[in-house]
Amino acid sequence: MSTEPQITETVKERERQPLNIGRIHDLAEALLPVHSQIDQHTSISDPELNQKLIELMGILRDLHPADVANVLESLPQKERVIVWKLAEPEDDGNVLLEVSDAVRETLIDAMDKDELLAAVEDLDADDLAELAEDLPQHVVAEALQTRDEEERAQVQAALSYEDDQVGAIMDFELVSVRADVACEVVLRYLRRFEKLPDHTDKIFVVDEEDVLIGVLPIRKLLVSDPEETVENVMAKDVVRFRPTDDVEEAAQAFERYDLVTAPVIDENKKLIGRITIDDMVDVIREESEADMLNMAGLQEEEDLFAPVWDSVKNRWVWLAVNLCTAFVASRVIGAFEGSIAKIVALAALMPIVAGIGGNSGNQTITMIVRAMAMGQITGQQAGRLLNKEIGVALVNGLIWGGVMGVVSWLLYQSPGIGLVMVAAMTLNLLLAAAVGVMIPVLLDKAGRDPALGSSVLITAVTDSGGFLIFLGLATIFLL
Amino acid sequence: MSTEPQITETVKERERQPLNIGRIHDLAEALLPVHSQIDQHTSISDPELNQKLIELMGILRDLHPADVANVLESLPQKERVIVWKLAEPEDDGNVLLEVSDAVRETLIDAMDKDELLAAVEDLDADDLAELAEDLPQHVVAEALQTRDEEERAQVQAALSYEDDQVGAIMDFELVSVRADVACEVVLRYLRRFEKLPDHTDKIFVVDEEDVLIGVLPIRKLLVSDPEETVENVMAKDVVRFRPTDDVEEAAQAFERYDLVTAPVIDENKKLIGRITIDDMVDVIREESEADMLNMAGLQEEEDLFAPVWDSVKNRWVWLAVNLCTAFVASRVIGAFEGSIAKIVALAALMPIVAGIGGNSGNQTITMIVRAMAMGQITGQQAGRLLNKEIGVALVNGLIWGGVMGVVSWLLYQSPGIGLVMVAAMTLNLLLAAAVGVMIPVLLDKAGRDPALGSSVLITAVTDSGGFLIFLGLATIFLL
Repeated sequence: MSTEPQITETVKERERQPLNIGRIHDLAEALLPVHSQIDQHTSISDPELNQKLIELMGILRDLHPADVANVLESLPQKERVIVWKLAEPEDDGNVLLEVSDAVRETLIDAMDKDELLAAVEDLDADDLAELAEDLPQHVVAEALQTRDEEERAQVQAALSYEDDQVGAIMDFELVSVRADVACEVVLRYLRRFEKLPDHTDKIFVVDEEDVLIGVLPIRKLLVSDPEETVENVMAKDVVRFRPTDDVEEAAQAFERYDLVTAPVIDENKKLIGRITIDDMVDVIREESEADMLNMAGLQEEEDLFAPVWDSVKNRWVWLAVNLCTAFVASRVIGAFEGSIAKIVALAALMPIVAGIGGNSGNQTITMIVRAMAMGQITGQQAGRLLNKEIGVALVNGLIWGGVMGVVSWLLYQSPGIGLVMVAAMTLNLLLAAAVGVMIPVLLDKAGRDPALGSSVLITAVTDSGGFLIFLGLATIFLL
Repeated sequence: MSTEPQITETVKERERQPLNIGRIHDLAEALLPVHSQIDQHTSISDPELNQKLIELMGILRDLHPADVANVLESLPQKERVIVWKLAEPEDDGNVLLEVSDAVRETLIDAMDKDELLAAVEDLDADDLAELAEDLPQHVVAEALQTRDEEERAQVQAALSYEDDQVGAIMDFELVSVRADVACEVVLRYLRRFEKLPDHTDKIFVVDEEDVLIGVLPIRKLLVSDPEETVENVMAKDVVRFRPTDDVEEAAQAFERYDLVTAPVIDENKKLIGRITIDDMVDVIREESEADMLNMAGLQEEEDLFAPVWDSVKNRWVWLAVNLCTAFVASRVIGAFEGSIAKIVALAALMPIVAGIGGNSGNQTITMIVRAMAMGQITGQQAGRLLNKEIGVALVNGLIWGGVMGVVSWLLYQSPGIGLVMVAAMTLNLLLAAAVGVMIPVLLDKAGRDPALGSSVLITAVTDSGGFLIFLGLATIFLL
């Protein structure tokens, strides 16, 4: 049995209160005038404000670190610092782990070296590694000095992996046993621990070389005959990961196979750590948020109350891309200025053609991106999906193109304009379907994330394409 | 002790193989010509095809039901039925639970009554309830007859809640004990179970009225003194849910407090069930997918190979909304046809003004929707966020408006057009910021989901608004 029973818990357990975020906002705002005097240990001369200070401290002490993190993210900078100073210092490390990167920076800026050292003191090696890149270097160095050899090595190991690799979120606290002992012995062994690691739902079974040979689910251990050996009770078929595996793929495996914890092994199949469902849930949440933010053209999760200039920087890339594609579309229109001068109605109708293409293309691309994320699209299927999407586009083009064709005919008393409208809308929908299937497939073949930027790309194609098709047809048939 | 120890497992444990979806696609396609003869128990005359049939059956038997579901979702209708007929019948119920609603319908259509009854035979009450609305009524009725009184009541209870309520996904299998027994007795009691319920990480502690008074985490039970009573070991501070609670809020609590299971209590605080992390992970995944699909204008998760007409129906609502808003924008332009006839360059430049407003507005709205989902936005903050977003819009307007102003000036040799461009872009960005904050805040105050449709609404405002501002300013200053 390889692990020593000395695992401690970092989050203390306490009564949880429902979070009244509005009251905290009110109190923090009321304390703004005295924000420079605020401190855990001193009171404020104004008795009314002091009362509020005490109330705020009381509320914050009862909150779970995850709730404190949520409150901090919701506050403007100055109020945030007030709340941060009054929050339970014992939870500081866990709060820092929970907040978004942008807000973490503002919190670390508000702390001095001793506060930072105290905050990270009780963190596990993997958590310390997670914070390390945001902490001042000398704080990390000093924090490492208080750890033993083994833990320093663990922090270094965690730091050596990319953020999106299993090794970066791997947990080093685990319980392992040998296969040849009886279940009764395992139970006695467990009783020697002061506490078992979080989320322990299985015990890892290793041989004398620390090679993983199975897992013993606690659920099985509890119902099995105490005399039975671990070998006869353990599951040999184990979902296991390598530290270099992609965390998103690991999260999908957790989701698919309903896992709570899973072992991580090195290239020699030796057990080196484990990953847990709570980290996987964060990965799933962050992954879907990142998709949403990327689709909307935000580079990363933004501090709600970031300084204006920080927000400008977070958003400028996509605005610039958008401006470039809009400029191309504008030049397409410019090429047909002669036609527009003759039939001004074209200027009014052309955004309709471009708009429906963009909307429909985004529908197609979203469906395909989702199926790709689930690994459902293989080579020969792209062609068949293309056929289906072309069919959908044709039906939509004839229906909605027909409707808008009749409307424009009546509006401008010109059957020609009506017919050009039907044709242009149908063709732009077909273009949107074709490009909507091809963009994610090609991005994926090129080894890129099929989601990122595909919405901007499709809109660029359907805008410029829609203007070109509509104005081109009008120039040929109406002039 | 209230629960009888007779919980059985429905998913059998077996060796898991890496999923080779491409090979399954190839085999299913090869079997297409003989798809009508395909059956678990008969062989095919052509020896080569028979070989492929056997290979496909072999692959499918080794797959986890979640992987089979993924494969089924990825296939066109006919191949899907082939794979479905060849998949392990024992897993049918679990596969049906895993697939998307759209695909579930096509699978159920391919099964006869006896197959359906066999598929749902071993399902838990909550799972049967989940499938019930997709199954033919007489199958549900017959399936219920084979259950005992208690289970029938559980199915009815689960069916009485909305899909988005905790009661609909609540699990009835749980282990509860009294507070006054010793830990040793609990361990002996557990050993009487053949198997513990999935994900059991805690045992619920109830009084003689079945009122929940605490939980006994297995992790604590394993390390505590066997002589100690449950009362002294259990946690009294428990995150608990009501069956009418919103599942998304429950999922957030699981995420925030790192839960694996949690008890569900009725209005008298009696323990009636539990919810588990695997269901919560599905909720998180589905919630974020729904946001993504809604933002792209798809009503619901679509069968990748749905018949064209089904796809058209799934997409028409948002296309129609988009056409209406595009038509309004078109009429705004129509009102300025006189100006465009005089300065045709306006037609080429106006999509740039509208486009940047839409892009920037979507950035704002996405950030606010996300913060609202986390409960971070309270009354007085909307005003402060508005101020910040207005500031960002002003900076972006002056930078990007300035760039495009200079470009248009050079392009059209007209400083007037350049100045109108700067002014119009800045004003439309300000409009986008204001509306981007207001739309989700107002939707939320009206009790609506702030995400749904807000992207379409903001684009409608920034398109029509952008055309109006740009063409209006041009008409006033350039004509």
